[in-house]
Amino acid sequence: MNNLIKKPKIIKVQSVAQSRLFTIEAVELTFPNGVRRIYERMKSFKRESVMIVAILDDTDILLIQEYAVALENYVLSFPKGLIESGEDTYEAANRELKEEVGFGSKKIQTLGQLTMAPSYFSSEMHILIAEELYREKLEGDEPEPLIIQKWPLDNLLSLLDEPNFRDARNVSALFMVREWLVKQGRLTY
Amino acid sequence: MNNLIKKPKIIKVQSVAQSRLFTIEAVELTFPNGVRRIYERMKSFKRESVMIVAILDDTDILLIQEYAVALENYVLSFPKGLIESGEDTYEAANRELKEEVGFGSKKIQTLGQLTMAPSYFSSEMHILIAEELYREKLEGDEPEPLIIQKWPLDNLLSLLDEPNFRDARNVSALFMVREWLVKQGRLTY
Repeated sequence: MNNLIKKPKIIKVQSVAQSRLFTIEAVELTFPNGVRRIYERMKSFKRESVMIVAILDDTDILLIQEYAVALENYVLSFPKGLIESGEDTYEAANRELKEEVGFGSKKIQTLGQLTMAPSYFSSEMHILIAEELYREKLEGDEPEPLIIQKWPLDNLLSLLDEPNFRDARNVSALFMVREWLVKQGRLTY
Repeated sequence: MNNLIKKPKIIKVQSVAQSRLFTIEAVELTFPNGVRRIYERMKSFKRESVMIVAILDDTDILLIQEYAVALENYVLSFPKGLIESGEDTYEAANRELKEEVGFGSKKIQTLGQLTMAPSYFSSEMHILIAEELYREKLEGDEPEPLIIQKWPLDNLLSLLDEPNFRDARNVSALFMVREWLVKQGRLTY
């Protein structure tokens, strides 16, 4: 991709709506060809997040069932959460693991970064893989205990048949970890 | 996943902020264990969207470069857009293809559905694969002509090395189409 491409010029950024969690901005801009547009986007949280694929005993990965209020249903997801102030990515991943699935990890590595609908959101999610797990539980802010579900490493893609496993970040992470395991010779396609 | 799990009870849904594009709702609910919470979510657009992986000449897939205002940068993406009123998924996909890359397709199939951060958004995106392309251009609402980029089928995963290809929906679609092609014997890992 050509990185010398000329970018639109942002003329004005204005907060147009605000709730406890979200601020919506209207962004007025001029494209290089002179066309003007006003777009809306979410103001950046300025906080990145982590999603962790934890491998238990080299045989299973760990998922949680949590309530997703926009779908009004429970979904299957890898543990995830915001990076707290003062934490690095690995510390955040280890804390979220302890809070959500009751394990810490002695070996956490980064698999990659994902964005989500970058026309509207700028926040970045780090996908990490956690191994060498040990039992340690931290209290999180969950309203109810999360149900933890193991999924066999040797049947990873069958997760895609689950109607409650459709979040694009989770689907991407699943494929990324499979690729990573295959590259190391720990899994075959 | 256990589908008989008892869901939280929604007590009240209230619009708390609104802009031209977005409405934010506060949702008050009680979990089965009695814990009360107020969550925020985006009010549903009531419109689903499509993302199309178009295969040209059985050798390349088609990407567009478009400006993503939340990142304030150009990103690489598969063609995509909202399903218009009266369209089915395939019609929407074909129209978006004509608008964004200047091709129609005689063979469009569904690969799957993705959600995006289902704690906040309920909208669903249909991932489709388009083949047997023919040249036809429709005018879209793009502020500037989109730059179209071909990517070789036999090197699909190298797209993951592009820093501007990180949107989780795009990453998922890339892996999904690769899997689909491998299953048909048209590609090897």
